[in-house]
Amino acid sequence: MVRYQIIIAYDGTRFSGSQRQANSRTVQDELEKALRKIKWHESSVILAGRTDAGVHAQGQVAAFDMEWNHSNIDLQNALNAYLPKDISVSQVNSVNMRFHPRFDARWRLYRYRIYSQPVRDPQRERFAWRIWPAPPSLQPLADTWLGTHSFTAFGSPPRTGGSTTRTVFNAGWKQCGDEWTFEIKADAFLYHMVRRIVFAQIAVIQGKISKNDLTAALEGSFELPSGLAPPNGLTLVEVGY
Amino acid sequence: MVRYQIIIAYDGTRFSGSQRQANSRTVQDELEKALRKIKWHESSVILAGRTDAGVHAQGQVAAFDMEWNHSNIDLQNALNAYLPKDISVSQVNSVNMRFHPRFDARWRLYRYRIYSQPVRDPQRERFAWRIWPAPPSLQPLADTWLGTHSFTAFGSPPRTGGSTTRTVFNAGWKQCGDEWTFEIKADAFLYHMVRRIVFAQIAVIQGKISKNDLTAALEGSFELPSGLAPPNGLTLVEVGY
Repeated sequence: MVRYQIIIAYDGTRFSGSQRQANSRTVQDELEKALRKIKWHESSVILAGRTDAGVHAQGQVAAFDMEWNHSNIDLQNALNAYLPKDISVSQVNSVNMRFHPRFDARWRLYRYRIYSQPVRDPQRERFAWRIWPAPPSLQPLADTWLGTHSFTAFGSPPRTGGSTTRTVFNAGWKQCGDEWTFEIKADAFLYHMVRRIVFAQIAVIQGKISKNDLTAALEGSFELPSGLAPPNGLTLVEVGY
Repeated sequence: MVRYQIIIAYDGTRFSGSQRQANSRTVQDELEKALRKIKWHESSVILAGRTDAGVHAQGQVAAFDMEWNHSNIDLQNALNAYLPKDISVSQVNSVNMRFHPRFDARWRLYRYRIYSQPVRDPQRERFAWRIWPAPPSLQPLADTWLGTHSFTAFGSPPRTGGSTTRTVFNAGWKQCGDEWTFEIKADAFLYHMVRRIVFAQIAVIQGKISKNDLTAALEGSFELPSGLAPPNGLTLVEVGY
């Protein structure tokens, strides 16, 4: 028996998220379905990061145990042949039997994409949030998130009552033409944390709240307007070990 | 009564092409459905270019006649409110009653997008053709198409027995990272012409045929392998008047 770590990408549009749930199409289900077709008899696949319905991934990590008598490349090819078109496996690695994709992860990198057009662009709607008029510079807001904070105002922990403290290593905006991309790297994220952080920054550039309100919200002395950036702009880019 | 020219964009994935046909979802049908919701009683919308099932558009042009007592911007907003998410109207112009989107067009610009990765990328599959290994420089092949030729080997005319002569004004490849984009501008195109031209160029870089075979195929002295580049890589970018 070998433990495999696989790197997967998906277009999240038609998924009800990454983790198994009743009566929904999830990434975990599709992975397990494809594995069963190549004679996998174990109980479940474990994913590194939980992504919400509609959120995409480029470097999601999953692990499972398997008896497999061929090469890793053969396993990758077999999985890609059986997986639906909106998921793919970009790497298969054999790992230590103690490897755990979630507990062993040291950081996660997410990307949020925005575009600015007066009318929706059907070629970009699927993977970006449309904002109009064009935002002014967003970069000055990015520093707000750096360091260790209690992100209570920005999401909820995986277990009720769990810690809401997270450490953000990097955060930055990049502009290219009419597109803005926000990348944020942290040890871990609360549920909805990236979408809430993006939403709050857009609220600032739209004049609904001030830059200082972001810091105050982090300190618990300001109540942010409720709301989330839509899931389609978000991609889990990489998980680091 | 006013004649309106509208510029539309669509994600062609879920359309059986642009023109009306029995029992299929087409761009023309969706436009007419949205127009009828805002009390349009005319017989049909005319499109500038016919796009195949799965082909996208950024600057498709359509025209229709309508009694409308509000501004063009109001008409645009009403259409965008009623159109499904995979189509949008980026401009509405009032035009001369003799304007015809197809007969008056002087040129069309198409773009074909390729990306190079060993495994499919679910975020790009929808709008690009995956080629692996990465192609060497494609630019030297682009000049082949310039000028006036009989493109008989590269498509069929709209009417059986119609002329297959077309004039290509510009053609070029651009590379950016692992993406290659082919743009071609001509007075008009035969059915399948861009997809066939892209397919033939890829056949050259894959060593299946030589660069000289392309010229020979244009001259009618070489039979190209059959095949088409997939529709999802293709976008109708602009129509010029």
